[in-house]
Formats: sequence, structure tokens, C-alpha cells
Amino acid sequence: MPALSNTALPLSFREDTRQRLIRVGTEVLSEKGFGATGIQAILEMAGVPKGSFYYYFKSKNDFGLKVIDNYADLWEKKLLRLLGDAGVPPLRRIDNYIDEALAGLEKYGFRRGCLIGNMAQELAGLEEVFRTRLVQVFSAWSEQLAQCLQQAKDAGSLSSALDPKAVADFFWMAWEGAVLRAKLDRSTAPILQFRSIFFQQILVPPRP
Amino acid sequence: MPALSNTALPLSFREDTRQRLIRVGTEVLSEKGFGATGIQAILEMAGVPKGSFYYYFKSKNDFGLKVIDNYADLWEKKLLRLLGDAGVPPLRRIDNYIDEALAGLEKYGFRRGCLIGNMAQELAGLEEVFRTRLVQVFSAWSEQLAQCLQQAKDAGSLSSALDPKAVADFFWMAWEGAVLRAKLDRSTAPILQFRSIFFQQILVPPRP
Repeated sequence: MPALSNTALPLSFREDTRQRLIRVGTEVLSEKGFGATGIQAILEMAGVPKGSFYYYFKSKNDFGLKVIDNYADLWEKKLLRLLGDAGVPPLRRIDNYIDEALAGLEKYGFRRGCLIGNMAQELAGLEEVFRTRLVQVFSAWSEQLAQCLQQAKDAGSLSSALDPKAVADFFWMAWEGAVLRAKLDRSTAPILQFRSIFFQQILVPPRP
Repeated sequence: MPALSNTALPLSFREDTRQRLIRVGTEVLSEKGFGATGIQAILEMAGVPKGSFYYYFKSKNDFGLKVIDNYADLWEKKLLRLLGDAGVPPLRRIDNYIDEALAGLEKYGFRRGCLIGNMAQELAGLEEVFRTRLVQVFSAWSEQLAQCLQQAKDAGSLSSALDPKAVADFFWMAWEGAVLRAKLDRSTAPILQFRSIFFQQILVPPRP
């Protein structure tokens, strides 16, 4: 293969290739995690010539962080679309989120879980910059859910004693555990069990 | 190093070395997971000569399964000691388990989590035999906790409508998520939040 000059490629091509690598990386890391994923495998799946990785990213860590950014961005939009949907009652929006997640788990044969959860689990092998970024992502998700729960409270659907932030934090904690079990059991049952207990016991209705 | 004949070593020495490898493996896998752990590192930490691994184990998978057996055995005893402690009210026993876990997380600087949770997360890279075994371990934990919850129900400490098995399953799901977050946040806060919601909202007291 002839040597590739960075500037020889049109910007749009370079951006497309970079985006394709990030997209493929997001898929693979949702399934396998960071440590177990080789750069060569990503390049092959993306149809990008071997050896050109460092043309697009400074390091594997740099790539990993870009993949997290991409996933965080996709999820922020997804949560905004579902949890911020003013046309739907707030608690129903949470249920809609769970429905989409169930469909996603089934679509990929319970192989793909949460990229953020996967990376959090392999923290021991990751640099500090990853930890900070993952904490940030969970915090943003919690904030988006807390707003939705606050709206449910304002609408009188939840007890006035319920703390939206605490319940939102709990939701994402337990959610990661539920997704883990769904993958392990190859079944939607853990998510359904999570949903049932979350809606029936944690989301306390207002006292009559 | 002279060649080692299997039968040249006294059985007790062989058993000790094998046990030491499993013990070190249990510690390392609780922290780093299976994929990221090299056999050589385990041998070095255990002070066992390089190259003698296959004298003790058929393969890395065989070793991994023995480590899971060891962890499952330790946990079964721990849960029996804590959740089966007839001298303590049933709900207090669950609290005692959480207290011990908090102390353990702090003792190891939030680096060591749950070996079963770690391995479940890296399932994509593991063979089917691991999946079956991990499902089994969670199921055993759930059974032990469900018995304790049933005793709390029998003692009139919980609503008669509460389903011990469903709540026990939920506990372990959410627990894995809480341990993951404690490691990520390097803080006991997620576990305390988990405990607070579990005891106050999920463990419904009997109606007066």
C-alpha cells in the first residue's frame, strides 16, 4: 500500500472513516468491553486499512474516550427523546425507556449490554481519566431521570416525600445490575422483575 | 530447573500449591476479571515456578472454573454465617451482610468487587460453561437470601404480600450494580443509598 499523506485525503473522507471507527468501536465495546477488544479487530470490521489507526487516534485510550463520548451523546439524545417527551405522562416515559431497552437486548441476542457498565466493570485495568468520565456519564443520566421524576411529582403521580435524585441514582445502579443479569440469563426476565419492583415498590404513589 | 515428576511431590505440597494458586486467583479476579488476568502474573504472585501451571490445571478455563468454585464456596459459608444466624432477627442479618461488604470494599480501597459480577460482565469472551456456572451461583445466593426473607415474614417483620424469591432476586441484581458504582465512585455512598432504599421501600412492613 502506498504511504498515505494525511493532507492527501479530503476532510470529509477522513471524518467519515473516523466516525465509522467510533461507531464500530461503540458496538464492539458494548458487547466485549475495552480490554478484550483489539484495535486490529475494529479496523477490520470497519474496513479500514491496518496501520492507519494512529492516523485517526492518538492512542487506544484516546479511541476509548471518543467511543465513550459517542455513546454518552447517543444516550443523552435517547433519554431526552424518551424521558423528556412532554406528550407522555412522566412515569410512562420511564416505562418507554425500559421497553426500548428490552427490544434492544432481544435484537442483539442479549450480547450487547451497557458500554458504560462494561467499562466501569473493567476499571482496574483503565486509567483514571476513564473513571472520571464514567462517573460523569452516570451523573448526567441520573440528572435526566431525576427531572422526569420531579415532573411526575409535580403532576401528583408520586409521593411528595420521594427524593427524585436519590431514586434516579438508585434506578441506574439497579439498572446496570439488571442488564448484567439479562445478558447472563439471556432473558428479559431480570429487566421485567426490575421494572415490576421499581414501579410497584420504589415509585411510591401519593398518600390518598 | 530440573524436570518435576508429578509423583515426586508429596500430595500435601501439591494440594497446598494448587490451593494457593486458587486463592491468589480469587483475589486477582475479584479485582481485574478473567480476561485481563495473565497466568504468569498469578504464578508470580503465588510464588509458584513458571511453567508449572499445567501441572495443577488443565487450562486457564479449568483454573477459572476452580476459582469460581472457591469463591462460591466462600460466599455460601459467609451467607450461611450471616443470613442463617438464628441468634439475630432476620432483617438485621441482611444489614450485617451489607456492613461486612462495606468494610471489605473500604479495606481494599474499592478495588475489589464481586468476582461473579466481574465474570458475568465479561461473558462475551467466556465459554458457555462459565455462563451456566455463574447463573447457578446467583441462584444459590438468591435462595439463601429468600430463606432469610421468608423467616422475616414468618416473624411478622414483613408484609405477607411480599414475595421472598422475587425480592431476593432483585436484591442481588441491584447489589451488583451498587458494588459496581461503589468501585467507580470509590465511595460507600452507592451501597448506603442501596441499603436505604432496599430497607425503606422494598422491604414493606406488614400493614398495621
